[in-house]
Amino acid sequence: MPLQVMAYNIDEAIYIPLQDLDKYPDHVKWISLSSPAEDEINSIASLLDLHPLVIEDMMQGEELPKVNEYPKYTFIITDILEFKEDELIANKLYMVLGKDFLMTLTEDIDTIRFVQNLVVSKARNIIEQGPDFLAYTFLDRGVDKFYPVLDEIEDIVMEVEDLVIEQPDKWILNVMTDVRRDLLIVRKSAWLIREVISSLMRGSSPFITPRTVIYLRDVYDHIIQTMELVETYRDILVSSRDTYMSSVSNSLNEVMKQLTIIATIMLPLSFIASVYGMNFKFMPELEWEYGYFAVLGFMILLTAIMIAYFRKKKWI
Amino acid sequence: MPLQVMAYNIDEAIYIPLQDLDKYPDHVKWISLSSPAEDEINSIASLLDLHPLVIEDMMQGEELPKVNEYPKYTFIITDILEFKEDELIANKLYMVLGKDFLMTLTEDIDTIRFVQNLVVSKARNIIEQGPDFLAYTFLDRGVDKFYPVLDEIEDIVMEVEDLVIEQPDKWILNVMTDVRRDLLIVRKSAWLIREVISSLMRGSSPFITPRTVIYLRDVYDHIIQTMELVETYRDILVSSRDTYMSSVSNSLNEVMKQLTIIATIMLPLSFIASVYGMNFKFMPELEWEYGYFAVLGFMILLTAIMIAYFRKKKWI
Amino acid sequence: MPLQVMAYNIDEAIYIPLQDLDKYPDHVKWISLSSPAEDEINSIASLLDLHPLVIEDMMQGEELPKVNEYPKYTFIITDILEFKEDELIANKLYMVLGKDFLMTLTEDIDTIRFVQNLVVSKARNIIEQGPDFLAYTFLDRGVDKFYPVLDEIEDIVMEVEDLVIEQPDKWILNVMTDVRRDLLIVRKSAWLIREVISSLMRGSSPFITPRTVIYLRDVYDHIIQTMELVETYRDILVSSRDTYMSSVSNSLNEVMKQLTIIATIMLPLSFIASVYGMNFKFMPELEWEYGYFAVLGFMILLTAIMIAYFRKKKWI
Amino acid sequence: MPLQVMAYNIDEAIYIPLQDLDKYPDHVKWISLSSPAEDEINSIASLLDLHPLVIEDMMQGEELPKVNEYPKYTFIITDILEFKEDELIANKLYMVLGKDFLMTLTEDIDTIRFVQNLVVSKARNIIEQGPDFLAYTFLDRGVDKFYPVLDEIEDIVMEVEDLVIEQPDKWILNVMTDVRRDLLIVRKSAWLIREVISSLMRGSSPFITPRTVIYLRDVYDHIIQTMELVETYRDILVSSRDTYMSSVSNSLNEVMKQLTIIATIMLPLSFIASVYGMNFKFMPELEWEYGYFAVLGFMILLTAIMIAYFRKKKWI
Amino acid sequence: MPLQVMAYNIDEAIYIPLQDLDKYPDHVKWISLSSPAEDEINSIASLLDLHPLVIEDMMQGEELPKVNEYPKYTFIITDILEFKEDELIANKLYMVLGKDFLMTLTEDIDTIRFVQNLVVSKARNIIEQGPDFLAYTFLDRGVDKFYPVLDEIEDIVMEVEDLVIEQPDKWILNVMTDVRRDLLIVRKSAWLIREVISSLMRGSSPFITPRTVIYLRDVYDHIIQTMELVETYRDILVSSRDTYMSSVSNSLNEVMKQLTIIATIMLPLSFIASVYGMNFKFMPELEWEYGYFAVLGFMILLTAIMIAYFRKKKWI
Repeated sequence: MPLQVMAYNIDEAIYIPLQDLDKYPDHVKWISLSSPAEDEINSIASLLDLHPLVIEDMMQGEELPKVNEYPKYTFIITDILEFKEDELIANKLYMVLGKDFLMTLTEDIDTIRFVQNLVVSKARNIIEQGPDFLAYTFLDRGVDKFYPVLDEIEDIVMEVEDLVIEQPDKWILNVMTDVRRDLLIVRKSAWLIREVISSLMRGSSPFITPRTVIYLRDVYDHIIQTMELVETYRDILVSSRDTYMSSVSNSLNEVMKQLTIIATIMLPLSFIASVYGMNFKFMPELEWEYGYFAVLGFMILLTAIMIAYFRKKKWI
Repeated sequence: MPLQVMAYNIDEAIYIPLQDLDKYPDHVKWISLSSPAEDEINSIASLLDLHPLVIEDMMQGEELPKVNEYPKYTFIITDILEFKEDELIANKLYMVLGKDFLMTLTEDIDTIRFVQNLVVSKARNIIEQGPDFLAYTFLDRGVDKFYPVLDEIEDIVMEVEDLVIEQPDKWILNVMTDVRRDLLIVRKSAWLIREVISSLMRGSSPFITPRTVIYLRDVYDHIIQTMELVETYRDILVSSRDTYMSSVSNSLNEVMKQLTIIATIMLPLSFIASVYGMNFKFMPELEWEYGYFAVLGFMILLTAIMIAYFRKKKWI
Repeated sequence: MPLQVMAYNIDEAIYIPLQDLDKYPDHVKWISLSSPAEDEINSIASLLDLHPLVIEDMMQGEELPKVNEYPKYTFIITDILEFKEDELIANKLYMVLGKDFLMTLTEDIDTIRFVQNLVVSKARNIIEQGPDFLAYTFLDRGVDKFYPVLDEIEDIVMEVEDLVIEQPDKWILNVMTDVRRDLLIVRKSAWLIREVISSLMRGSSPFITPRTVIYLRDVYDHIIQTMELVETYRDILVSSRDTYMSSVSNSLNEVMKQLTIIATIMLPLSFIASVYGMNFKFMPELEWEYGYFAVLGFMILLTAIMIAYFRKKKWI
Repeated sequence: MPLQVMAYNIDEAIYIPLQDLDKYPDHVKWISLSSPAEDEINSIASLLDLHPLVIEDMMQGEELPKVNEYPKYTFIITDILEFKEDELIANKLYMVLGKDFLMTLTEDIDTIRFVQNLVVSKARNIIEQGPDFLAYTFLDRGVDKFYPVLDEIEDIVMEVEDLVIEQPDKWILNVMTDVRRDLLIVRKSAWLIREVISSLMRGSSPFITPRTVIYLRDVYDHIIQTMELVETYRDILVSSRDTYMSSVSNSLNEVMKQLTIIATIMLPLSFIASVYGMNFKFMPELEWEYGYFAVLGFMILLTAIMIAYFRKKKWI
Repeated sequence: MPLQVMAYNIDEAIYIPLQDLDKYPDHVKWISLSSPAEDEINSIASLLDLHPLVIEDMMQGEELPKVNEYPKYTFIITDILEFKEDELIANKLYMVLGKDFLMTLTEDIDTIRFVQNLVVSKARNIIEQGPDFLAYTFLDRGVDKFYPVLDEIEDIVMEVEDLVIEQPDKWILNVMTDVRRDLLIVRKSAWLIREVISSLMRGSSPFITPRTVIYLRDVYDHIIQTMELVETYRDILVSSRDTYMSSVSNSLNEVMKQLTIIATIMLPLSFIASVYGMNFKFMPELEWEYGYFAVLGFMILLTAIMIAYFRKKKWI
């Protein structure tokens, strides 16, 4: 469905061909594009009288979220984030908002379907309102999509928080670095979308009615919440990293303790052997027939006592 | 008490049978359900003309807190948290708020009784006001119930904070993980209930009067306080975990110190034994009759001196 | 002075007997109770027509700060904290605020005297205003008393912050735990008093005039400042505890270093002794007449060199 | 282009010679200076009647951002930061804002060009507005230039955050110190520019119209965001430094572990050798023909077993 | 200049003798005292009809910042901080603000001169305004003086932050403790001055005109900024202390590593010596003529290999 045009007013919501755009003066016209062919863009651009810069932005697809004012329309770029196969990707959403139309361009089919359903099912009174409310619906949906993304991140962050104590392995550091990068993407995106919404709320666009501004405030609150969550997760990651370092340190110390225990057991034994290696003229034990075996037996006994003592002290 | 219907106005508060609902046009009608049979729900649904989606939500019982607007009523879902046998559980509270009635569905008998008492005892002027005030009373009660839950968590958190220093055992980590999960549940619940109340305050529902909005602001403040407390406890847990890691590290180091002291006592003794194990032609001590015993005695003396010295230095 | 009744207006402030309460219709009447006998409470209760619940609360004396509305008066409970012999205690202050009277009940004689002086000295224009301003004066005094308490805590916290580095002894942990508990009490008390004041400011009581609300805002600001201070001290305690753990760790490591230095000095000596304990046929030194003493001398020299070297390196 | 004078109104934007300044009473006059000769400054100073203090400030070029009010104009100093060859430098921007003119003096050619383009291309409706809007454009541009600077810092900070774990080398500390100093410069600059903008917004200058104040609010928000980012990066640096210390500590401990393993392997071998160095009369092994080689073989076997055991335990 | 009296209005600013105070009814009178003799204070007190408590406060000179209302004037105490020979001292500034006069008493000559210059040079339109604006000028100057103090502290804090890593010496802890105490003084002072200004802004004094309140808001913002800076520096100190502890720990560990390396080199050598100390009947090496020297040579070789290996591993 590369191109769909819908016209709706309080009475009806119908699909129309692109060339009939002018035949519905009392309807809100929604032109929905998705992976359009170049000539489709061009024909729409000439129909809506789009500025070459707008067309260029939509073609290149690498612009950051922003709002640009033109005399006859407002050009809005925003991001819709989602996790695809553990990879965080940002779908672009381009919107051209005019007096009685909204043009949208995005590869996020899911969002298009979602808004179509809202319009067709007459939900949220969309059909009673203008194209700016439709644009708000898109922005709202885009911001709502932050939540599943953050939920996924939260799951990883929470698991990491447990793992850094239980199994402080090197790969957890890599997971943390990945999540940190994802959070950076989310924060940057949220930051810029906040700017977009804040700019629309301040009345930069004449096509946004005061009534829609009230709804935008809601979206604005959600984006602020998103940013707070990002900060929270980032804090948790930082403290998890500290805990990881402590865990590694404690594991190392635990090994050191084991090694030191071996050393501590060997030293008294060596000492005893050294004693009977002394060359004194008169050392009665050396003359005993079973002196050697008695000393070996004593060494074994001493080892057992030391191990038992360390066990009791919970050092082993 | 699966089903109770109460009708009240400024003069009286009486229990009525369900079928008499229409006979009290000037009363506020409160239909209270608790573990209802399916046909009870159905008969009420047809009486109040409930949407199938509302019925489905109430039947399944796993929905998150939210507000849904319908032309004739507002459907509100919220959580009422409590600790049952050390387990944090979230009772659902479903409310259908209409022009002159409120339907509530919850398994939390305690809350139903509490509100019934308020109505019957004419407290807080409930009977002078509409069903929205009754709904507020429920929301208020639900949010108030966060406090005992957080008190219980605070007790555990405070004890953990002491224990991580005094007895840094592994099981404390498990306790901390459990509390952390409970805090997560509380935070999520509070987060969503805040959204519900914020949505009602913004006037999303036509059945909420401005007067009740003022009271909702109070509930909103309480939920914000709850969220602050959750953050505080979370911070304490994080810092307790760091302290735990330091405690474990210090315990390990203490053991290392003990072991090293044993080693440090053995080494000079071994050295002395080695000295008399040397094969020099002329070593006068070796010829002494009691040289061996003199050396043994000196070793014992040296050990005593070292132990005394370490004691004095407070190393033992 | 279990019972004192004062009547004042813009012209005069006089002590009157309780039974003359009705004879001064144009005066503000202040009934001040302190450790009253039961019959005194009862006679006042019947005079002021107090609700049994109010009387019960005042008798039991264990209620938390709160505000209760009654048709003819507002019942306020608040805490006045102070340190008595290093113990943090919370004196209760009960107030019954009516149209032209204020009844106060507290054991905190100091506060009663303070307010009496203000009234008698005609300070702050108290006598030009109603009983709500008198109630405000009490609340203000109660909140002001947080400051000396927090000053005392600050002194301890600051000293602890120094001591954890200089003398990381176990008893400091106990001091920290005690202070932490005191802070908890202060925070809880401040939290609830904030609720009380916030409730009075929102106009819950008809006996509070708008003019007094402005003054209450001031008290509200002070209680918020108190809570900020509590958080600050708590943060300092947490970071002090971390520093304590590091201090202990560093002390332990310092001991380890001393022990390791002893070991490091012994090992080369033992090695030399071992060398001359070898059984080679041809070892010229063994044949020397003073070989033994030469080796002993060399060992002493080596020890001196090592100690000098470690000194130079600042390891000792 | 040391000196350029532009005059513009809603119809046109033209370059004019300095002496024609008075011939365009209905135009906004923009006098742009860059590395001016001294006599140029003097001639402009006499034309605009500049106070000697203003001239002195512009000559010396080391003043901090500030606003000074004079009867006929407002004198504004601000910073424009940029990275030049990894060095953070602050270009000064001096502005003299009068009723119908703006004089600017800066070495930042890039910013001059940027604003010239905006005026010539009639962007942002600059030409419909007064010289205060032109001054705002400069301030806005200056604040926008914080972002690339902070982006560069962010890149370094993020890399440092990874490196402190992977390669905790000494030079990273130096990088951190450098970035910390850059952040200090940015913060001080942002702090003072905030003061400048805040002062202009409060209406300190009669040459700033209310309409421009609205735009200044936008710049104010951006500068606040800048300061938040600076704090964030600073926090990351602090926590990175902690991680660096832990990393260094863990590397050291790792080395200690290796050394201790060597010691732990040597000790049992030494013990065995000591045993056969004992001088007991009756030690059967000593008499065996291949006893010596048997013991050597056993020592090699024991070493292999210990190494295998340590490998299995993942200590090596 | 213990006593100076200036009278000014929009036309002139002249010094007058004290006794002529009443001869300039249309002028603002500024009585400036500095280290006054007691009889000077008394004569002024009787002229201005000062309350004995005010005179007492000014004589004793140890009062904390506060505002006291009297019928005919407002009495203000504030602090002016400065560093004198590395010592932070707080000069008191006492002000008595009446309807048409301001009396100031301070030892801070610098501030008096500063304000005199402002008046004489007719800066900031002081002479067009009342004595409250003059009082504001003093308060503003006092708050401005926080900045150089904080700059000095910042320099120390930044240097400490570097030194704790590079040279973690004991004296840095003392510097930190000193700075921490200075910050405490600044915070307390700022806290109380904030209270003073906040009280004046709320209209507690009838001698403060609404116009001056606007200017006071500016001072209020500055004092808030001061308090934020204090918190920032305090945070840096806390984290620096943690870094110091880690630095000390790492230095200790570095020493331990050196010592352990010595031990690790000695142990294999000792082992070899022990081997040739065994008493086996048949040990061919013992019979070799140069066996002893071969073994000594092998020991030297082994030592060299170990040192080379440790060098390669970067352990030395």
